[in-house]
Amino acid sequence: MNASQSWLDAVRWNADGLIAAIAQDAASGRVLTLAWMNRVALERTAATGCAHYWSRSRGRLWRKGESSGHVQHVHEIRLDCDNDAVLLQVEQTGGIACHTGHERCFHQRLDDGAWHDVEPVLKDPKAIYGDR
Amino acid sequence: MNASQSWLDAVRWNADGLIAAIAQDAASGRVLTLAWMNRVALERTAATGCAHYWSRSRGRLWRKGESSGHVQHVHEIRLDCDNDAVLLQVEQTGGIACHTGHERCFHQRLDDGAWHDVEPVLKDPKAIYGDR
Repeated sequence: MNASQSWLDAVRWNADGLIAAIAQDAASGRVLTLAWMNRVALERTAATGCAHYWSRSRGRLWRKGESSGHVQHVHEIRLDCDNDAVLLQVEQTGGIACHTGHERCFHQRLDDGAWHDVEPVLKDPKAIYGDR
Repeated sequence: MNASQSWLDAVRWNADGLIAAIAQDAASGRVLTLAWMNRVALERTAATGCAHYWSRSRGRLWRKGESSGHVQHVHEIRLDCDNDAVLLQVEQTGGIACHTGHERCFHQRLDDGAWHDVEPVLKDPKAIYGDR
């Protein structure tokens, strides 16, 4: 074992080798995203100061903002009590964390037994990613 | 399908029938816990206004605070863009969300390549749960 990596060994990765990673806006305190990290993603996040995740849908490592430019600069990394979730304090470039063009992913609120989209789309996803 | 339950059908439960649930202190904005919910837990959370979770370690439904008294009163429930995580705004009874007696679960911070416990234990767990 590389002693310098022991902090990564302390993490309790799940059966798929992943942990949940919450990103919170360091300035506003708003919770932006819940994504997943594998060991390499967490290591690179710590090493570079930019959030990296594991895309479960695409099955690959992903640097947040690599397509959109919406990089997350990471100010702090916290681990929870049972070592299977991390909380990042981030500065969200462009003020948009969600691929839908919303500020954040948590834009649906439960009201009267239904989910309602209660936050605006700040930028058309086609303008963020191109018309893929 | 019961029409009144369609908001539950909109949730994308994982292979184990669960979703990740973040609890954020509604007053301070601090992220307290990341736990898991099955369908019944989310339904009861919405119906009662008290957070319910699925304990993966104990394999059973769990009303937060049932042993500790540290109930989470839920002010708001949000769903993320791909419908597989929820964010709760809560009022944390007793000011302690973590079973370790810390205010919250995210009390370990990465500094200089190691995790450091940077928040105090507010109450001895033995005093919370009894000497089990």
